[in-house]
Amino acid sequence: MTVSANPLLSDRDVDFQLYEVLDAPALCALPAFAEHSRETFGLVLGNVRRFAREVLFPTYRMMDAEPPVFRDGRVHTHPLLRTLYPQLVELGLLTASRPPEVGGQQLPLTLYSMASVYLMAANLSAYAYVGLTIGAAHLLEAFGTPWLREQFMTPLYQGEWTGTMALTEPQAGSSLGDVKARATPAADGSYRISGSKIFISGGDHDFAPNVVHLTLARIDGAPPGTRGISLFAVPSRRPEGGRLVDNDVRVAGVIHKIGWRGMPSLALNYGEEGDCHGWLVGPEHRGLACMFQMMNEARIMVGLNGVATASVAYHEALAYARTRPQGRAAGAKDGQHQTPIIEHADVRRMLLRQKAIVEGGLSLLAATSLQADLAAHAPDEETRKRAGLLLDLLTPVAKTFPAEKGFEANVLSLQVHGGYGYSSEYLPEAWLRDQKLNSIHEGTTGIQGLDLLGRKAVAGGGVALQAFSEEVLSTVARARQAGVPGPWCAALEASLESVLELTMALGAMGMAGEVETMLRHSADYMELFSILAVAWRWLAQAAAAREGLARGGESQEFYEGKLRAAQYWFATEVPRIKVLVKLCSSGEDSYTGMRPEWF
Amino acid sequence: MTVSANPLLSDRDVDFQLYEVLDAPALCALPAFAEHSRETFGLVLGNVRRFAREVLFPTYRMMDAEPPVFRDGRVHTHPLLRTLYPQLVELGLLTASRPPEVGGQQLPLTLYSMASVYLMAANLSAYAYVGLTIGAAHLLEAFGTPWLREQFMTPLYQGEWTGTMALTEPQAGSSLGDVKARATPAADGSYRISGSKIFISGGDHDFAPNVVHLTLARIDGAPPGTRGISLFAVPSRRPEGGRLVDNDVRVAGVIHKIGWRGMPSLALNYGEEGDCHGWLVGPEHRGLACMFQMMNEARIMVGLNGVATASVAYHEALAYARTRPQGRAAGAKDGQHQTPIIEHADVRRMLLRQKAIVEGGLSLLAATSLQADLAAHAPDEETRKRAGLLLDLLTPVAKTFPAEKGFEANVLSLQVHGGYGYSSEYLPEAWLRDQKLNSIHEGTTGIQGLDLLGRKAVAGGGVALQAFSEEVLSTVARARQAGVPGPWCAALEASLESVLELTMALGAMGMAGEVETMLRHSADYMELFSILAVAWRWLAQAAAAREGLARGGESQEFYEGKLRAAQYWFATEVPRIKVLVKLCSSGEDSYTGMRPEWF
Repeated sequence: MTVSANPLLSDRDVDFQLYEVLDAPALCALPAFAEHSRETFGLVLGNVRRFAREVLFPTYRMMDAEPPVFRDGRVHTHPLLRTLYPQLVELGLLTASRPPEVGGQQLPLTLYSMASVYLMAANLSAYAYVGLTIGAAHLLEAFGTPWLREQFMTPLYQGEWTGTMALTEPQAGSSLGDVKARATPAADGSYRISGSKIFISGGDHDFAPNVVHLTLARIDGAPPGTRGISLFAVPSRRPEGGRLVDNDVRVAGVIHKIGWRGMPSLALNYGEEGDCHGWLVGPEHRGLACMFQMMNEARIMVGLNGVATASVAYHEALAYARTRPQGRAAGAKDGQHQTPIIEHADVRRMLLRQKAIVEGGLSLLAATSLQADLAAHAPDEETRKRAGLLLDLLTPVAKTFPAEKGFEANVLSLQVHGGYGYSSEYLPEAWLRDQKLNSIHEGTTGIQGLDLLGRKAVAGGGVALQAFSEEVLSTVARARQAGVPGPWCAALEASLESVLELTMALGAMGMAGEVETMLRHSADYMELFSILAVAWRWLAQAAAAREGLARGGESQEFYEGKLRAAQYWFATEVPRIKVLVKLCSSGEDSYTGMRPEWF
Repeated sequence: MTVSANPLLSDRDVDFQLYEVLDAPALCALPAFAEHSRETFGLVLGNVRRFAREVLFPTYRMMDAEPPVFRDGRVHTHPLLRTLYPQLVELGLLTASRPPEVGGQQLPLTLYSMASVYLMAANLSAYAYVGLTIGAAHLLEAFGTPWLREQFMTPLYQGEWTGTMALTEPQAGSSLGDVKARATPAADGSYRISGSKIFISGGDHDFAPNVVHLTLARIDGAPPGTRGISLFAVPSRRPEGGRLVDNDVRVAGVIHKIGWRGMPSLALNYGEEGDCHGWLVGPEHRGLACMFQMMNEARIMVGLNGVATASVAYHEALAYARTRPQGRAAGAKDGQHQTPIIEHADVRRMLLRQKAIVEGGLSLLAATSLQADLAAHAPDEETRKRAGLLLDLLTPVAKTFPAEKGFEANVLSLQVHGGYGYSSEYLPEAWLRDQKLNSIHEGTTGIQGLDLLGRKAVAGGGVALQAFSEEVLSTVARARQAGVPGPWCAALEASLESVLELTMALGAMGMAGEVETMLRHSADYMELFSILAVAWRWLAQAAAAREGLARGGESQEFYEGKLRAAQYWFATEVPRIKVLVKLCSSGEDSYTGMRPEWF
């Protein structure tokens, strides 16, 4: 009794976020996006929605059930990928947000983000090959020489090859400064690469002839730590004399992941035979800096994935709850027919919580993507700078909230399914497995907390937070104008105020050299900031919903649902900010004071 | 790099709970337990600890990797069970807590509970056959005729056969009143059973010759709903003419569960050929009432399982964090050696949270089991009655807290392992899968919330809550005496007071007929009550730790760790009670007001 017609994501909600909560078409006034309009947005979304639902989603369960196999030194991915990947390329995804110079359509990231959520919700592994390839090609576009771009970027963007990010080593995950892979200069200007990488997603497969690994390594004699790491393009097969020859990158093993099972995660050995050629991308020793310039976008992609994985599960639970009969409404007699479980208050609670997380997260990602567009393409430098600050501040939150709370939503989807949810014949458990990666890759939740509090919130005397504050207050003004309940507006203002005060106090501690004390509660700070940021998005949605109701028309039920979800967030989550602010400012030292030997 | 020497559970902590926090040996003053003493407790625990670590735990991964197979109409379980089950029987587990009349040792449940946590932590599926068999035999012991006891109870208790609970049907899970299986009286005084059951754990296997299903069914002509359901003993093979003959119970399918993979969960068809014999257990139409008399114990077992599954994962994470090098302590230079990740504050936070959940949960289960012992065996009726009220009140909390927060602890164990945690070559993901069942079976978390608030907390004008209040205040007095920080004592008193007030207000609402409003926030009530109950246990542990420190001796580090974990609970969880009380009393109606069509 699985529920098959899953919409993945609510079209009405995506349109609401783009056209009513935000004014995404206004981006088309920027020169970079002048070719676009609400109409082209609609065409792109229409194609993606159709493809995601009709082509991609039906492949999800098959790819989850038959993960890649490592045989004869090569990784054999699911045979479906041989037709799926070309179709994803055909859809124009690889260069959709890239400029015309590299063959792209230069769509705003705001639109691309929303479109990609459908693809991720349909089959995250299949889409991930696209995402990784874009990431690798984008690095070459930004930092590669014309030769490198021609040799490697072009086949990536054209969908002939695929790409990876090869950062992690067995001893260097969160701690990239400890990367040991070596790069020895060769006479021809390239390098000979040696070393081992692990958790390399898409590191080998059998549906395209080559994989280009954007690889972190140390040039011989480089300084230790983070300032001695360089970035290299290292293909699995290198172009030589007009053909591709083996480049001495070996698959050392496949990691048996619990999710994302359509995509292999590999251990790779470089240069076992001393014949692995790599080409420097960007300046020597500046590899991490190059990588970090792409980090915001990569982390936004993880956030989108978190939303997508929670969204598809939420819609599955919703359809199940509407059709599964069990028990009776309060006050009914034994003899009466059973009611669909959506009639039970506790089931509606679980569904509303999922909705609040999914749509709150989607709204946060849309708003963050909009800042990315402005940061890259606004004509005046001041706007670009301000948007860049907002982007930097919001990114760790937009990555972490969907990963952590999205997982909670996935747990609730399984719970709504009762005993059936515990069976692998139903899909919620698969999405639960998929979701768990998002709190780990592209910087763990712990790392994001340190980034948010230790860097972003206090940088430049809190200038990013100041910009955030302006955005929040402008949303409050809009909400008041639209007739959103006053207590919600007041609660958001008060919460913002208390977070600003807390941040100043913590920043002052950092300035005074008490960094350990300042960062002690970075996880709690991330938690409270996430609640605040999502409350901001729910207030914006409530405002747009009230405006919509005032206009009248067909969407009344949709708007009423939005107002209930906003109410839920303000009633259940926002009051927790106060508790968390107190915790962060209390100097509470249970875990920093807990000595390892006391456990 | 898996960590293999996992202690499953801290022996020091179990001893602490039994002998320092509680005074479990005092139970031996009761006539029922007069044969026992701290020495016999120690012998039992010693045997169980050794068996769990040396025999049972090494089988866990193998049984998870090779789940039962359905072939030729029979279920083939892991071959290891053919030697493991007799060893579990040999250990005396089946009758350990049963009276001498049925061959038992009559150990206090308090001790049996603690012992079973080791076995569950080592291999929950293997142990579950024992738990189910005890449950089935115990029902026969309590309600069966002498003939039924001889025919079915004896071979179960002797370990020759195994037992199941066959309640759920495809259309009747949480809603047992909708059970449809039929029982038609036969001339010989037995019944002919027909119908289908689903999710029957251990419903078939190949390591013992027979399975007895304690089955809910309706006698022809029975009234509809919960008052027309009877309980039957239905063996897979029935004794006839001195031998076992097929009893027409067919395996219709194996459910592919995501965890508990050492034990099959089955769909069963009864009486396809009209030849399924069943024997009535207890009075006609009183099957649910009989079942519910065993419910507290069954739910305590689920709670213990939640603690066990979180505990083994916590110890795995702890060992990993002590040995895995990554990054450097704050303020260190790049060139220095990497430190074990336990040195990072955020890792210690994750470990301390796991410790607080695991040991707080264990303490709650020990205290609840103690009430069960008193309820069954105290010499005076008043004590029995009071203990029974406490047992009824605490059971839904002792079932739900370890299931829900234990799952969170399991997530943290995976997170501590970073990318390796996402691999099935490491164990945390397996325990995460196992744990998820505990919020679903034996009454979902939603059902437990309704039970706690709608029945237990308000029953008899709040008399159970009154007894709970006395227990809490007596713990506060002990803590003050021992020099536990005053603010913790005051916080627990204030929280208790606010929960009592809230419950009175909600109870009054129920009395006034506003049941829907009263129960609207039953999930939030469960949450706040859980925090309160565990805070009570942490205050008791803090008191015992302070007393221990005052005595001096070898355990100083252990006691310091206890005080830090208590501090953590009071700093991070207890303040949430106030927020949740406000939510429950506010009449907040977001999800009850959310109409199904608004989603």
